[in-house]
Amino acid sequence: MRVMLQTIEWIGHAARLLDQTRLPMETVYVEITDERQMWDAIKRLVIRGAPAIGVAAAFGVYLGVRHDDSEYLADFDKHLDEVCAYLATSRPTAVNLFWALDRMKRVSRETRKQGSRSEEQMVQKIKQRLLSEALTMLEEDKEVCRKIGENGLALLEELVGSGQTSTSSVESSAVGSKTSRNLSVLTHCNAGALATVAYGTALSPIYLAHEKGIPIEVFADETRPLLQGSRITAYELREAGVPVTVICDNMAATVMSQGKVQAVIVGTDRVAANGDVANKIGTLNVAILAKHYNIPFLVAAPTSSIDLSLATGAQIPIEERNSSEISNGLGRQTAPDNVEFYNPAFDVTPAELVTGIVTEKGVARAPYGAALKALCG
Amino acid sequence: MRVMLQTIEWIGHAARLLDQTRLPMETVYVEITDERQMWDAIKRLVIRGAPAIGVAAAFGVYLGVRHDDSEYLADFDKHLDEVCAYLATSRPTAVNLFWALDRMKRVSRETRKQGSRSEEQMVQKIKQRLLSEALTMLEEDKEVCRKIGENGLALLEELVGSGQTSTSSVESSAVGSKTSRNLSVLTHCNAGALATVAYGTALSPIYLAHEKGIPIEVFADETRPLLQGSRITAYELREAGVPVTVICDNMAATVMSQGKVQAVIVGTDRVAANGDVANKIGTLNVAILAKHYNIPFLVAAPTSSIDLSLATGAQIPIEERNSSEISNGLGRQTAPDNVEFYNPAFDVTPAELVTGIVTEKGVARAPYGAALKALCG
Repeated sequence: MRVMLQTIEWIGHAARLLDQTRLPMETVYVEITDERQMWDAIKRLVIRGAPAIGVAAAFGVYLGVRHDDSEYLADFDKHLDEVCAYLATSRPTAVNLFWALDRMKRVSRETRKQGSRSEEQMVQKIKQRLLSEALTMLEEDKEVCRKIGENGLALLEELVGSGQTSTSSVESSAVGSKTSRNLSVLTHCNAGALATVAYGTALSPIYLAHEKGIPIEVFADETRPLLQGSRITAYELREAGVPVTVICDNMAATVMSQGKVQAVIVGTDRVAANGDVANKIGTLNVAILAKHYNIPFLVAAPTSSIDLSLATGAQIPIEERNSSEISNGLGRQTAPDNVEFYNPAFDVTPAELVTGIVTEKGVARAPYGAALKALCG
Repeated sequence: MRVMLQTIEWIGHAARLLDQTRLPMETVYVEITDERQMWDAIKRLVIRGAPAIGVAAAFGVYLGVRHDDSEYLADFDKHLDEVCAYLATSRPTAVNLFWALDRMKRVSRETRKQGSRSEEQMVQKIKQRLLSEALTMLEEDKEVCRKIGENGLALLEELVGSGQTSTSSVESSAVGSKTSRNLSVLTHCNAGALATVAYGTALSPIYLAHEKGIPIEVFADETRPLLQGSRITAYELREAGVPVTVICDNMAATVMSQGKVQAVIVGTDRVAANGDVANKIGTLNVAILAKHYNIPFLVAAPTSSIDLSLATGAQIPIEERNSSEISNGLGRQTAPDNVEFYNPAFDVTPAELVTGIVTEKGVARAPYGAALKALCG
């Protein structure tokens, strides 16, 4: 396997980001050396995906204060608060952003409990701890995703076989399947390495299979209107050497009917207490098609995405976005003026269509109420 | 209702075509005065849709020979054959093209049976009959489509109510439906007025409802990769004053789950003897979603699209088109190089997902074998 893409890494003097606005045509890395550059990178979607944004914000906090050599803690604290408040305005809807900023402020508070010879020295100590915390968050995210991958791959092998060791369940799960072939998975949108620090959520089991030498291939829905599937999922899988076939969203039924897909795996933005799953628009379509063809439909997510405060998916607010994403999303106008558009950015897949929810702590299966509570408890 | 768009009409000295390559941004008509211009118009998709192409070819034949003042029939016949052979090369896969050319040649043969004072006069007589036949074909296509509309609207009213007179079946057919509202139909691709001379097939019941003052609205799948839904269906419905909402293909499940759609109606390229239906890629997805939400799924087609020689849809060859339609279809490259693409242009919807097949001669319902044979008999 080729080296996995680095969404974000620390290179000693700067945070290095893969510029996702240039994908899929160019692989360009940018070095971020201060908080203003990081704000801009988050704002412009140079870096995207809730987990990745959280880690980026943490590095942004460190970059914002690293040259602060205040004599007094109060001055440093004021500066730190300013930096955090500034970074919080980059993408106000990404919950992981606020979570990361809070965590950095907490580190600052807790470090001073350890004491120091002078406030000036304490400022230096806190700065060191902030960098260390950002690096920890980066590693934690990798670790969570890696565990999602392990749990997801085990579930895939249980449900459909690896393509090497077992074929009987393959045959029962798809029309017209052959007795020996690669593991073949369909995904929607991008819940891959480029939405996290590494591995991703939905794509993590795929990367792990590939690492282990299990033959695996992916069908990637292009995911209109913003084409995260063709632009980002196809790109990162190609970079990792995983065979990927891009299809339009409306071809999913055809590939399923032809027995080309043994399982579907997607990410999620939020899981309700009853197992209803909000994810990128089109996920519900795929879930219904998977049910029709008796293909397992898996959702991969860190437990931090499970929101036990919401009883059902009906309570998850669905963002409706600008119609120009549909009418002008791809380089030129493709629909007439003076017609209506409807552009919900997410949909909610009812729990009864979900075969399993794969987290870093294990897999939840129906009935989801108890299973999710146990995982989060 | 505003005047319906004229895909093709005869204006005394020329055939006037709506240039569909300029849609949806410009409404431009072109006057076609000879067979070379008609060849080019068919080739470049200025005019498209099997029924419309057939009628265009018939006018092309007349335009090719109208200045032929041969003294001898043999000379005229040679010229007519040349014009037909030439027009046949414009789009070799459109079956209606060959059907139309054959019909024009038959008219030429049959006219001479009537006798005339001289061969020179017979040539003039044949030319008149050729124009008259092209005009007949134009009117026939309108009439077939209009009858499909009548039969389709009656079926829609039976299945879901008109929105004015009946609400009980509405309530049972869609989740969360209200007790009083417009008739709301989802369509995929374009089987409208612009694929025929007027009315269309799938859109004909919608135009008829609109003419009758029955409140009706349409959800149009944009229909990747070539966007016939957003480019053409949305355009022609807007021109007719029918409310239309464009959605991405992957939003169909969401609008169905919200009770916004009471029926689906699509066209077809070919119906097999068992009722399996080939149509634009993505039709199968919509049919499965409609079944999941218990929404009627209707197919509209002239009986000439029913192919009793094919036992099932599995025998219908599915054209696979160039991957650039997916990767570069919309103004710029949206997928990386060196990945795979799969781009089937059509899919086959099994008969068991089809609620009814609406033709100009009536509606076929399951079991389709007997019903289709009766309609074609």
